[in-house]
Amino acid sequence: MASSGQIGVVIVGCGTVGGATAQILTQQADELAKRIGVSMPLRAIVDVDFTHAKELGLDEKLFCTDLDAAIAREDVQIVVELVGGTTIAKKIVAQAIAADKHVVTANKALLAHHGVELLSAARRRGTVVAFEASCAGAIPIISALTGELACDQIDAMYGIVNGTCNYILTAMTEQGSTYADALSVAQSQGLAEADPTLDVTGVDSAHKLTIMADLAFRRRTRFEKIYVEGIDKLEVQDINYGKELGYVIKLLAIARRQGDALSLRVHPAFISRRHPLAWVSGPFNAVSIYGENSGHTMYYGRGAGDRPTAAAVVGDVASVAIGNSQQKFQTLNIWPDRHADADLLNIKAVRCRYYIRLQAEDHPGVFAKVANILGDHDISISSVLQHEPHTETDESVPMVITTYEALESNVRTALNKMNRLDVIKQPCVCIRMVAEHPEKTGTRLNADC
Amino acid sequence: MASSGQIGVVIVGCGTVGGATAQILTQQADELAKRIGVSMPLRAIVDVDFTHAKELGLDEKLFCTDLDAAIAREDVQIVVELVGGTTIAKKIVAQAIAADKHVVTANKALLAHHGVELLSAARRRGTVVAFEASCAGAIPIISALTGELACDQIDAMYGIVNGTCNYILTAMTEQGSTYADALSVAQSQGLAEADPTLDVTGVDSAHKLTIMADLAFRRRTRFEKIYVEGIDKLEVQDINYGKELGYVIKLLAIARRQGDALSLRVHPAFISRRHPLAWVSGPFNAVSIYGENSGHTMYYGRGAGDRPTAAAVVGDVASVAIGNSQQKFQTLNIWPDRHADADLLNIKAVRCRYYIRLQAEDHPGVFAKVANILGDHDISISSVLQHEPHTETDESVPMVITTYEALESNVRTALNKMNRLDVIKQPCVCIRMVAEHPEKTGTRLNADC
Repeated sequence: MASSGQIGVVIVGCGTVGGATAQILTQQADELAKRIGVSMPLRAIVDVDFTHAKELGLDEKLFCTDLDAAIAREDVQIVVELVGGTTIAKKIVAQAIAADKHVVTANKALLAHHGVELLSAARRRGTVVAFEASCAGAIPIISALTGELACDQIDAMYGIVNGTCNYILTAMTEQGSTYADALSVAQSQGLAEADPTLDVTGVDSAHKLTIMADLAFRRRTRFEKIYVEGIDKLEVQDINYGKELGYVIKLLAIARRQGDALSLRVHPAFISRRHPLAWVSGPFNAVSIYGENSGHTMYYGRGAGDRPTAAAVVGDVASVAIGNSQQKFQTLNIWPDRHADADLLNIKAVRCRYYIRLQAEDHPGVFAKVANILGDHDISISSVLQHEPHTETDESVPMVITTYEALESNVRTALNKMNRLDVIKQPCVCIRMVAEHPEKTGTRLNADC
Repeated sequence: MASSGQIGVVIVGCGTVGGATAQILTQQADELAKRIGVSMPLRAIVDVDFTHAKELGLDEKLFCTDLDAAIAREDVQIVVELVGGTTIAKKIVAQAIAADKHVVTANKALLAHHGVELLSAARRRGTVVAFEASCAGAIPIISALTGELACDQIDAMYGIVNGTCNYILTAMTEQGSTYADALSVAQSQGLAEADPTLDVTGVDSAHKLTIMADLAFRRRTRFEKIYVEGIDKLEVQDINYGKELGYVIKLLAIARRQGDALSLRVHPAFISRRHPLAWVSGPFNAVSIYGENSGHTMYYGRGAGDRPTAAAVVGDVASVAIGNSQQKFQTLNIWPDRHADADLLNIKAVRCRYYIRLQAEDHPGVFAKVANILGDHDISISSVLQHEPHTETDESVPMVITTYEALESNVRTALNKMNRLDVIKQPCVCIRMVAEHPEKTGTRLNADC
């Protein structure tokens, strides 16, 4: 597209990211055109409410309420959808594609639910849907998955892709805050929404996991089938016991091969404090990828925020403007509209390590009962941690057990049996542990090329 | 180029990386063609010695000693230069360009010394030189700098880009090894060369810094003008004092704006243990980039090794095969052959924090003398660390001072004066400290798009 000189852009939705994108495209227009070699003029900002746009000092001549007219403009080649949600946004994207426009979007929910349909439509019309900003904000993870990693066989992917959850977990870990307190601080700092449900239940992470896993494994992964568990039930005492054992808790979005099937899941997990993901703190995001040739690579940055997300949107606009996105979309065979459904593993068939906390009466024989149940279900104990009671009247003391890799269905059955023991005073707490993924690639440096 | 169906490849140089590249292109050929949508057949491997190629079980029909004939083949579109060095390699790349072939190379020394000349030649012939593998192995840092980051104003870049040095420093930090012991373990494990000079003196890091900084700052940065200091003089006691103060030592390749000029330098530096770069251990590499819009992003992975580096080479071959590299090279205005020289700051004009260790006689008034000299040169003390002497006969005790940001030329003058004091028994040790770079971007998450 570079040859046409100017690539006109319309932004639909002027919220936090839309506003920042409009600012970059207008205030940095000359500098951008110099760098990219193509001018990408913003032709219009479509919204129904321009309060935020006015606060940002955006040029009022750009304000437009007529979506149809804006999309239909002949001097517009790219429609940037930043409305969010899955209903109006879907209509806008479909309409833009039908009008032969390229689409840039940051909308992970839309792509997780309707990505295949929209990509197919774009393919039929010869346009492209670019969505770097939909996953992990400023981190160029889509670019990595559709670049060098597209040439590699990917074995596994572990992502911290929700800044709100990571901020909360970091506060619980470093300051010992309760979940409720950490959430309320996050909300007061604009790092969590008034209704944080989508974030803290893990749904937002699952949206992003679907998008990334589709590209990484070249299969349709279906959002509805992803196992999702949030952070809203976590207790500080478990985070502290984990710390004592050398682990850090993170909400992980995991996609990994297990035999011929794929395991896709979002849940809190203890990871070794030596793993790079353990260091990702506050609102930052990171994605670790294990490739057959490339080995372990990790991508780190701000997963949200106005300008970091807008940076990814502008990057996509530029990639479409010079034609890179189109070449990747038309040539590479990694897009989900070109592939069949993945064979997804049920969570019960997953093999994992487990952290189990029991609140048991301090009587002789308790540990033997628990150990028997675990042994009967093929679950080997890796470590046990039990502190002396604080006072003589402490009748119920927490006992923490970590296991070697075991089958989830066995662990669930064992937990049910343990919870029915009369010496167990509260339901056992069980948190998955994720071991360092083995790299398949060599570690030898090149003596010379 | 995708339309022509097949993109033929010749590999020149079958060492560690060349061999692994040949293995991937042949053994994974079908899978690669399926993913990329273009077939990239390996036509020939050019070398003078095929011992390694035979060990790898590569097809002997590919072996070829006639470079001219291989480059001239009509069914070859890409020449992969993996010979290394700056003389024969330069001739090979120039010859390939003159024959209208695209070039993929992992050769950082070649690009640091002759990059502009070779890129200019490629531009004149309408071909491209792709060099992802030249910097930080499997980490797609060139892709990031020529992708989303090309749309951003980059403020600073901090890289750990030499795996040998990072392995040695990690061993010194974690096991308390001396430099000599850590180097010899690295050599025995194939993680350092028999002659480690290029690595441990920082020259290899400076090669990579030139290449990355050229793209990040859109200026020619001239390798010869980079200030370079290696790790070969570091002592374990300083690493330990740094640890006590909350810092980790790394060999950093730094490029940052300071006013209108650029500061480019490679030297050991103490960084806060809270900075993500502090966690990069063993032979891993990472590059932290601070963009005006994107904020802090970091890219982590194996900086060398046969398959990780080959993964980057193959990624470039694919990018050329689908035409992405050409579009970026022809359209973007970030390539050094299109820009004037950068205004590089002399190291003496750099402002930095400093760690200073003095071996002083334990007499009254010593600290006052030192503090006076520092004060006279506009150097403020941030912290002081002095342990009690171990025995009563310990007459000379180490005193560690950290400073606030000061001008390097002032620090050098002050050190000279301190070294001339009669109570100072050995030359003072001075190590730069790198503070967490301030992010200019906001941290507010997007409530909605």
